[in-house]
Amino acid sequence: MDEFSLIERYFAGLGAGPAVALSVGDDCALLTPPPGELLATSVDTLVCGVHFPAAAAPADIAYRAVAAAASDLAAMGARPLGMTLALTLPEADAAFLGPFAQGLRAAVKDFNLPLVGGDTTRGPLTVTVQVQGAVPAGAALTRAGAQPGDRLCVSGPLGDAAAALAFFQGEWQAPERFAALLHQRFYRPLPRLDLGVALRGVASAAIDISDGLLADAGHLARASGVRIDIESGAVPLSDALLAQPDEHTRLRWALAGGDDYELCFTLPAGAAVPDGCTAIGCVSPGEGVHASDTVDFPAGYTHFAS
Amino acid sequence: MDEFSLIERYFAGLGAGPAVALSVGDDCALLTPPPGELLATSVDTLVCGVHFPAAAAPADIAYRAVAAAASDLAAMGARPLGMTLALTLPEADAAFLGPFAQGLRAAVKDFNLPLVGGDTTRGPLTVTVQVQGAVPAGAALTRAGAQPGDRLCVSGPLGDAAAALAFFQGEWQAPERFAALLHQRFYRPLPRLDLGVALRGVASAAIDISDGLLADAGHLARASGVRIDIESGAVPLSDALLAQPDEHTRLRWALAGGDDYELCFTLPAGAAVPDGCTAIGCVSPGEGVHASDTVDFPAGYTHFAS
Repeated sequence: MDEFSLIERYFAGLGAGPAVALSVGDDCALLTPPPGELLATSVDTLVCGVHFPAAAAPADIAYRAVAAAASDLAAMGARPLGMTLALTLPEADAAFLGPFAQGLRAAVKDFNLPLVGGDTTRGPLTVTVQVQGAVPAGAALTRAGAQPGDRLCVSGPLGDAAAALAFFQGEWQAPERFAALLHQRFYRPLPRLDLGVALRGVASAAIDISDGLLADAGHLARASGVRIDIESGAVPLSDALLAQPDEHTRLRWALAGGDDYELCFTLPAGAAVPDGCTAIGCVSPGEGVHASDTVDFPAGYTHFAS
Repeated sequence: MDEFSLIERYFAGLGAGPAVALSVGDDCALLTPPPGELLATSVDTLVCGVHFPAAAAPADIAYRAVAAAASDLAAMGARPLGMTLALTLPEADAAFLGPFAQGLRAAVKDFNLPLVGGDTTRGPLTVTVQVQGAVPAGAALTRAGAQPGDRLCVSGPLGDAAAALAFFQGEWQAPERFAALLHQRFYRPLPRLDLGVALRGVASAAIDISDGLLADAGHLARASGVRIDIESGAVPLSDALLAQPDEHTRLRWALAGGDDYELCFTLPAGAAVPDGCTAIGCVSPGEGVHASDTVDFPAGYTHFAS
């Protein structure tokens, strides 16, 4: 099957949306940005064996790739308009592409993110998703607005993705009843798109947690020119994480593990913490991130760390 | 060096542009679409060993990746707003990244395409460029507007990229005086951005030549629901191509070779052929592409051809 038949067979019918003026099949897709809004754009690549295990299910790979990219829209307070997919794969294999397209379809539906274009090439399995969203001028949530006196919040429990990876790799014998939850938290993360929109005009700064809380709070602190203190005991943990008896391991997963795709944001004093979110720290003059009870923690996952 | 230092060191200072509201360094970049215009978006991936030889110079890889993606904007008649880069590479190697960034810088400047975001990951060398452009609603050049009676035109000589590849691979001993031209045509193609804008309201359909003239004219014919006849002898050839004595080889390069990134477009009867462009065929009722003097030609490069 050639590239064009492949695209037609597996990726057709995912490209319609209210902002899509022209979808898959021309040199470019055409999107209609809402009048007066800015275009928010971001790209995320997942490499087989680096960002997901080689044994991962194709549907999960697709879903996670889209979720990871969509999470960047959530962190800006942007509404999704559409995405493109650059898919490099070793061969046009129906056993891979069928379920991959299913996972893609689920993500398109769950995140209102039509697939408007793409490029399919032959090579080592790599999935790059580029998302487009829209946000009213002046309403975007950046990393740079945190002020001394603000509270630091997160949108949900942290550490599950790192715990899941340990579980998949046999490094942690988690109780079997948490297997489904851990799988979902790693492979089917839910970008906080509605929360991102709700935080417009409320949060002073925001970032999504992809590198790990300490690292991502560090990006936020640096961009805002402030110090952030985290009360480690306040970080919400799932029941699955609490099944890990070693406290240091739990904290390492929750504070230094990445890929949770929750939002980390700052609220001015007096602003109510949104439902489901938790205040875990505070902002003050200075620099850096300081977390209680953390010694010898890696500062979050970075590629090419020396 | 970690991912963040790497990005800062090599890719800084490429992200400013008139439409860039927020550049590299946050969860998303923010672009300001011109009022009343549509957003044109496209993505292109180049895989090492598939789309360029493993021995290619890093600066050339970068330049060609951007040019290939920008060419899709040209084919829509869109003006560039900005691009993102998803770069997967085996290691953070200064000997690669220094010249790669130089090539990127040249492309940013030549095509007015600021680098507003990206993702750097570890893995087999793969370069994915996502371009964003703008085009007034109703003015976009699609593949679908060709009408019987239109003329088919191309924006410049074809076949040089295929000839260059044969030259690089030692399959063709081209005269040494053409070495620089062939290198430029393969690695430093010039997307026809100004021509694309000039063709708004003039051309009835357009596509860029990336898969090869026969294949790309085929896409255009199919999208427009027409037949296209090509007069092979009218296809413009460079002096380098004319140095190939075998006529069949010349024609194969010009008609079935890809990666020239010239525009192929249709003009209604009476419209003047723009300077530098050449009429090579005509549109009639029916379907398919029919070129004189071509027998047993491959239909253009496709991945995963069976």
